[in-house]
Amino acid sequence: MIVIGEKLNTSIDVIREAVQNSDIETIKGIALSQARAGADYIDVNCGTFVDREPELLMWMTEILVEYTDKPLCIDSPNPQAIEAALKVCGNGKPIINSITGQRQRYNSILPLILDYGTSVIGLCMNDDGIPDSVDARVSVAERLVEDLVRDGVDYEDIFIDPMVQPMATDQSSGQMTLKTIAGIKERLPGIKTICGLSNISFGLPERSSVNKAFLVLAINAGLDAAILDPTDHGIVSLAYAAKLMSSQDDYCLGYLESIRKLNGR
Amino acid sequence: MIVIGEKLNTSIDVIREAVQNSDIETIKGIALSQARAGADYIDVNCGTFVDREPELLMWMTEILVEYTDKPLCIDSPNPQAIEAALKVCGNGKPIINSITGQRQRYNSILPLILDYGTSVIGLCMNDDGIPDSVDARVSVAERLVEDLVRDGVDYEDIFIDPMVQPMATDQSSGQMTLKTIAGIKERLPGIKTICGLSNISFGLPERSSVNKAFLVLAINAGLDAAILDPTDHGIVSLAYAAKLMSSQDDYCLGYLESIRKLNGR
Repeated sequence: MIVIGEKLNTSIDVIREAVQNSDIETIKGIALSQARAGADYIDVNCGTFVDREPELLMWMTEILVEYTDKPLCIDSPNPQAIEAALKVCGNGKPIINSITGQRQRYNSILPLILDYGTSVIGLCMNDDGIPDSVDARVSVAERLVEDLVRDGVDYEDIFIDPMVQPMATDQSSGQMTLKTIAGIKERLPGIKTICGLSNISFGLPERSSVNKAFLVLAINAGLDAAILDPTDHGIVSLAYAAKLMSSQDDYCLGYLESIRKLNGR
Repeated sequence: MIVIGEKLNTSIDVIREAVQNSDIETIKGIALSQARAGADYIDVNCGTFVDREPELLMWMTEILVEYTDKPLCIDSPNPQAIEAALKVCGNGKPIINSITGQRQRYNSILPLILDYGTSVIGLCMNDDGIPDSVDARVSVAERLVEDLVRDGVDYEDIFIDPMVQPMATDQSSGQMTLKTIAGIKERLPGIKTICGLSNISFGLPERSSVNKAFLVLAINAGLDAAILDPTDHGIVSLAYAAKLMSSQDDYCLGYLESIRKLNGR
């Protein structure tokens, strides 16, 4: 299970304020807490500052590079902002979050993947929007992977995000996403799948329970990576348990090792 | 989701001591906490007192009948103990936990179901033991249901328990149980399925996470009822979220209603 820390996102009040006030200590503290909790990557997102996004994403990235050794997940649709972050991003191979099958976005993000040798998250959408059937969504993923590989991106560097939409507005969205994950794993063998959790529960009470139930089912369907709060011991431990329940794990050794790592032993 | 409170079991130290000391207040307190938390049934089990089980199970049952209005799940393989409890069990229709396909046990429990008009939990085992394939286990369930219905038990009064065995001793047991649940729901349409959670995690660290991951996957596979700790808000809320993710729930109304009930509103 690949865990990507979600907390450095300016849609969260405390992060927006820290960015506004150039408060390095807060950013550093939250970065370190995620790194110490065992995050494999740390997501950086300054998307709420539309006009200053390149400058601020670079500022946040510089803090992370100085104080942690975790690779970053650079979270923006804006190629200028992504490139500003990539220029200062020295911690291992970053992930660009994200590219899509939309022609303009595809053409503007592709050179960054190639020039900086990054991994990339591909969203299941194109110029026609987000397909509303499992089959069509998997087909968009296939086409995106085919294009990326043809254009020089390594298959191993691609993560596919099935697109998680809120249950509150579409009660079939959970099952749709789960079937899309399973379909992607079947039709694109070995490709990595990823998703953010919190969208699924938007607008519902007890969101954490909905996120957790979705995470377990998604891992069982073949999810490889999740963008979540790595400092929430309960959800990370649940992810490892879901991996145990849904895989062949001789003598539960993978689970035991994950729990030891989680507890810093 | 039918929730059966698991806490009045003499395998738990505090309950064993309360029973030994005829401590009504402790039994009453734990019964009330489970009832208030929204348990649909309360399980009673004095199985560690082999020689005095009928007398003690009757004593525990009398306390529950006096102080709660919840129906009981009478948890014993011993027909004398079950009947002792049934004689004083006035709270709605109880569940006998459990019958099996073992001839002697079947013949000794069946008259109690019929005489007292109870529901019953049937375990997927017979005189050959617990089958080690999904198909064979579902076949044992089919035979047991066929026998019970032929002998006068209502189909609606039968719960089937697929038998949960620890992952630590058999790493395939989780998937085996999940597939057995799905197979039972397919081959015995409308039959209710039930299981206890805690066996799955026996011998592993962070047991609560393993129990939770298993519960979510079991509900997705078709589990209708679970024997668990109803005072653990997190696991009950997770069960409702799992039900939401795995079912058609227009406008999430079932989930919203469950959460309101859980929060006593």
